[in-house]
Amino acid sequence: MSSSATKSRTRVVTDGPRVDGPRLLRDLAELARFGADDRGGVSRPGFGRADADARRHLIGRAEAAGLAAAVDPAGNLVVRRRRRTAGPALLMGSHLDSVVHGGRLDGAYGVVAALEALRVLAGRDEPLSWEPVMVAFTNEEGARFPQAFWGSMALTGELRDPRRAVDRDDVPIAGPLREAGGDLDRIADAAWPDGSIGAFLELHIEQGPVLERAGVPIGVVTSIVGRTLFEARVRGRQGHAGTTPMDMRRDAMATAARVVLAVEELARSGACRVATVGALNPEPNVPNVIAGQVRLTAELRDTDPARLGAAEVALRAAVDRIATLTGTTIELAPVMRATPVATDAGLRRVIARAGSELGLPNRTVASGAGHDAQIMASAAPIGMIFVPSAGGVSHAPEEHTGDRELVAGGDVLLRAAWELCRLGAIA
Amino acid sequence: MSSSATKSRTRVVTDGPRVDGPRLLRDLAELARFGADDRGGVSRPGFGRADADARRHLIGRAEAAGLAAAVDPAGNLVVRRRRRTAGPALLMGSHLDSVVHGGRLDGAYGVVAALEALRVLAGRDEPLSWEPVMVAFTNEEGARFPQAFWGSMALTGELRDPRRAVDRDDVPIAGPLREAGGDLDRIADAAWPDGSIGAFLELHIEQGPVLERAGVPIGVVTSIVGRTLFEARVRGRQGHAGTTPMDMRRDAMATAARVVLAVEELARSGACRVATVGALNPEPNVPNVIAGQVRLTAELRDTDPARLGAAEVALRAAVDRIATLTGTTIELAPVMRATPVATDAGLRRVIARAGSELGLPNRTVASGAGHDAQIMASAAPIGMIFVPSAGGVSHAPEEHTGDRELVAGGDVLLRAAWELCRLGAIA
Repeated sequence: MSSSATKSRTRVVTDGPRVDGPRLLRDLAELARFGADDRGGVSRPGFGRADADARRHLIGRAEAAGLAAAVDPAGNLVVRRRRRTAGPALLMGSHLDSVVHGGRLDGAYGVVAALEALRVLAGRDEPLSWEPVMVAFTNEEGARFPQAFWGSMALTGELRDPRRAVDRDDVPIAGPLREAGGDLDRIADAAWPDGSIGAFLELHIEQGPVLERAGVPIGVVTSIVGRTLFEARVRGRQGHAGTTPMDMRRDAMATAARVVLAVEELARSGACRVATVGALNPEPNVPNVIAGQVRLTAELRDTDPARLGAAEVALRAAVDRIATLTGTTIELAPVMRATPVATDAGLRRVIARAGSELGLPNRTVASGAGHDAQIMASAAPIGMIFVPSAGGVSHAPEEHTGDRELVAGGDVLLRAAWELCRLGAIA
Repeated sequence: MSSSATKSRTRVVTDGPRVDGPRLLRDLAELARFGADDRGGVSRPGFGRADADARRHLIGRAEAAGLAAAVDPAGNLVVRRRRRTAGPALLMGSHLDSVVHGGRLDGAYGVVAALEALRVLAGRDEPLSWEPVMVAFTNEEGARFPQAFWGSMALTGELRDPRRAVDRDDVPIAGPLREAGGDLDRIADAAWPDGSIGAFLELHIEQGPVLERAGVPIGVVTSIVGRTLFEARVRGRQGHAGTTPMDMRRDAMATAARVVLAVEELARSGACRVATVGALNPEPNVPNVIAGQVRLTAELRDTDPARLGAAEVALRAAVDRIATLTGTTIELAPVMRATPVATDAGLRRVIARAGSELGLPNRTVASGAGHDAQIMASAAPIGMIFVPSAGGVSHAPEEHTGDRELVAGGDVLLRAAWELCRLGAIA
């Protein structure tokens, strides 16, 4: 779907609901105070104090607007209208937590915009077939407790072994979850019944450069990339850097360097969308000793599961060639696999139409990052809306999107939700 | 000088002193108890408790043999005969300290063999023109206090800013030096007067594979390699590993990998003898973030100062090419330069002749590792004797040389010292 094709079919309309832009931006600024750090960004790991304070703050904002706020047993904040229809939910939202030294938009923007959309819809006296509901998921990032997507997995009934969850200091999750308003003993109750969700919409910053480079304010997400994360362990032979001749070395560092470049080449040659070695740890890691061992990570991402599989095969072949060439051994173990997920084609149409009716150019874009929406896809049709990220920067204090674009994204979310709820179907 | 050429000129003789092999090996085994670690090796950093205990133990061994032992203000242990000639010293020895998880031979072997040689010479009632003296230098490795070659530099008067020496926890050296028997206030007194040393002989394991591969028990060291150590800092742009397209990346990790391979290629192409990246530290070093910065070390070694200089020029050119290619910046700063040092040609002849007279095949070999001898070269002619290292392994618990080879090395040291001291000249 091209943006020009969409625009040619649709004329800009002036009716329909609009968000209160200044209110949305004020809510966002207020939320950024919770976990504000000394680098100008936000550090609000899930189940931390700032996360709990932010949740309480949002409950206050929802109740001030006459809405009903509740925290489910997984710590998810769910906000509804007080007078409801009996129909399925049009669930909107994102996550409240951040990475350490992250920005003020990742997650928070989608939550605040969903609250604003719900506020506007609740304020209109209009019959709705689907019930608009806001959700702020808990611990999407996994910054403290490594169980990323905790909240959306609980809501879809996919949380595995929640009782075993501990943080990096082995603190069990039960206490921090209770502080957040949850309850580990009743966590199964966080799962919603089959058919209770008509659709899930998530508004998010792109976290990449595509929209900014194209000069387009609205992205209609086609898919969320799959991800395979490997840990590689290169075993060479430790030795004296002065006395071991080059032709007798089995240098794990030089071997690891070849693996790093082979991973990069996988994506540069088009085998997969992106490929990254982000972490590399040599031993003993001192200047005058040939490294005996290096551990490193290799991460492949693609929107197509078949390509992701083929890239893995190619990576294994490259690693085997390097091991043979260098006389080392290289173990390559997958430690995480996330399947690529496509958004619902009907919801893509709804989002694109909403953008066009608002006079906002839009284009399709794939998500390179993971989102709660990919978890929600097992329970309901999902749709995602992106707004541009300045410089493509995210997970950093410099994360930024202009006020106009933030308000525009909120308007698209609201208009899409309005159309879905009025019709009670995806059309 | 080839071993066959040497042998053809010299017949094996049966007169002259020989070491007490079992006593030498027993002394070595006893010394290995000080700092014995749980990996089967030795951890005896300079100025630690094990180092002090080992020094006291050696003093006891020397005194039991009727010798005079004294610790100089730098912590060096100096052992002499009680009745001395007035002539210059024939100084013999090596260092007492080890790296962490090192072996039992590096340094210790040269000390124990020098003690044995001195014991034998002291036991012979023979007029000597040069006075044989044993030295056990302090802190050659720099494992705790990074001032490597502390003892030999103090003895040659080259120690810079000894009062500023602190360990990695900022503990000043004065206290630990006092525990070792030294005295920071009198450290200048550790320097020997000009002309007081006739020659310095150091016996050491090769720490490399050349002798073992050649099947030759005695190495006559021609030179000690020079070494230039650089710290490189690669600055790219940190980013999200999922959302940043490959063509927009400035990946410091992939750039660092290219630098690692360029360093290796310097030596493989013959620009210098060996080249090693031993340490590499990425930031933030997590799987799903493109590294924004990587610090790494690059170490070049060669016996020829001109080649070492040319290799540095080639490294800078390679690094500049990589920075341009990858859109990153790379700073390359030299943090240590040690000049290559040649051994004395006359002492090489003396050592080779001693070996041949003992029926021990010998060959010339360059030292890829640094030694106290390279410091002593500024004060006296130096000679070095190597024995084979099994597998070329050193700075590791697996460091090993056979008993016969250890005794043979001791015999060569003793015979060379005997000839030098009797003659009072290098001939």
